[in-house]
Amino acid sequence: MKGREHIDEWPVQFAPRLSVEAVEEGTLLAPKFNAEGLIPVVTTNASTGEVLMMGTMNAEALVRTIEAGEAHYWSRSRHCLWHKGATSGLIQRVVEIRVDDDQDAIWLRVDVDGGASCHVGYRSCFYRSVPIGSLNSGPVKLRFEETTKVFDPEVIYGDAPNPTQL
Amino acid sequence: MKGREHIDEWPVQFAPRLSVEAVEEGTLLAPKFNAEGLIPVVTTNASTGEVLMMGTMNAEALVRTIEAGEAHYWSRSRHCLWHKGATSGLIQRVVEIRVDDDQDAIWLRVDVDGGASCHVGYRSCFYRSVPIGSLNSGPVKLRFEETTKVFDPEVIYGDAPNPTQL
Repeated sequence: MKGREHIDEWPVQFAPRLSVEAVEEGTLLAPKFNAEGLIPVVTTNASTGEVLMMGTMNAEALVRTIEAGEAHYWSRSRHCLWHKGATSGLIQRVVEIRVDDDQDAIWLRVDVDGGASCHVGYRSCFYRSVPIGSLNSGPVKLRFEETTKVFDPEVIYGDAPNPTQL
Repeated sequence: MKGREHIDEWPVQFAPRLSVEAVEEGTLLAPKFNAEGLIPVVTTNASTGEVLMMGTMNAEALVRTIEAGEAHYWSRSRHCLWHKGATSGLIQRVVEIRVDDDQDAIWLRVDVDGGASCHVGYRSCFYRSVPIGSLNSGPVKLRFEETTKVFDPEVIYGDAPNPTQL
């Protein structure tokens, strides 16, 4: 069950997607993975509602998250199953898992050990805002909504490669 | 600026992605679109923090959202720019736009005219939860967290095709 072109083993925990009505109005988990075997995930702070990060899961990451109650993702930069916090200690403890209408997206509500989810050191990956109605002749200027890092990435991650791709 | 393989016209509102440091720690909007010209978007209720939906934008949808303060998406089922609410009246008024660390995801905080964002008729697309630790020998059973629809989809959408794909 890797994150790849096609899922070669459909977990027993997932129902087949037989009809639109069953997927939208039914009570069986029948997730849809894309051509790369991945499903997008949004993770929010269970108490505040703040969006912490967006990621992806393969089938195995979803099963392990349901099983363990700790967030697992598919790392697109490292191409492997990713138990969030295994390196940094910033484990995400899952309070609730939701699935959307057509079951092609997952929402995790979590409590975070250490209070941060962003590899840059901020509480949320979404630490900058885009002012509305601010279009001029050049690039839009962002505003920092978080100004203090929770941790120093060099201390936590050391020489590990930065996952950001240009 | 359609949602397609490559963006053929980089809007003046977007800076080039020249370095990881500038993308992560800088103050210029330099969004990353995938191979199909799309960027994922999560939309939450600005007051409650509830996740309403996940969608995608192409470059034009992002520029129009910043400009108008009303959510625009790229419709993957209809393959066109989608001013959310143009058909249903359920306009999403944008309170805040956020961008994540590597600028490959967007978060919209919105107020919703009519109080619903889901084509099935619920307030949120994520109206069902997946119980944690509940793995048995068959498919996982979902629980409905919303039990009453805000609107009747047949009244709002009539004969329009259902966007859900199996």
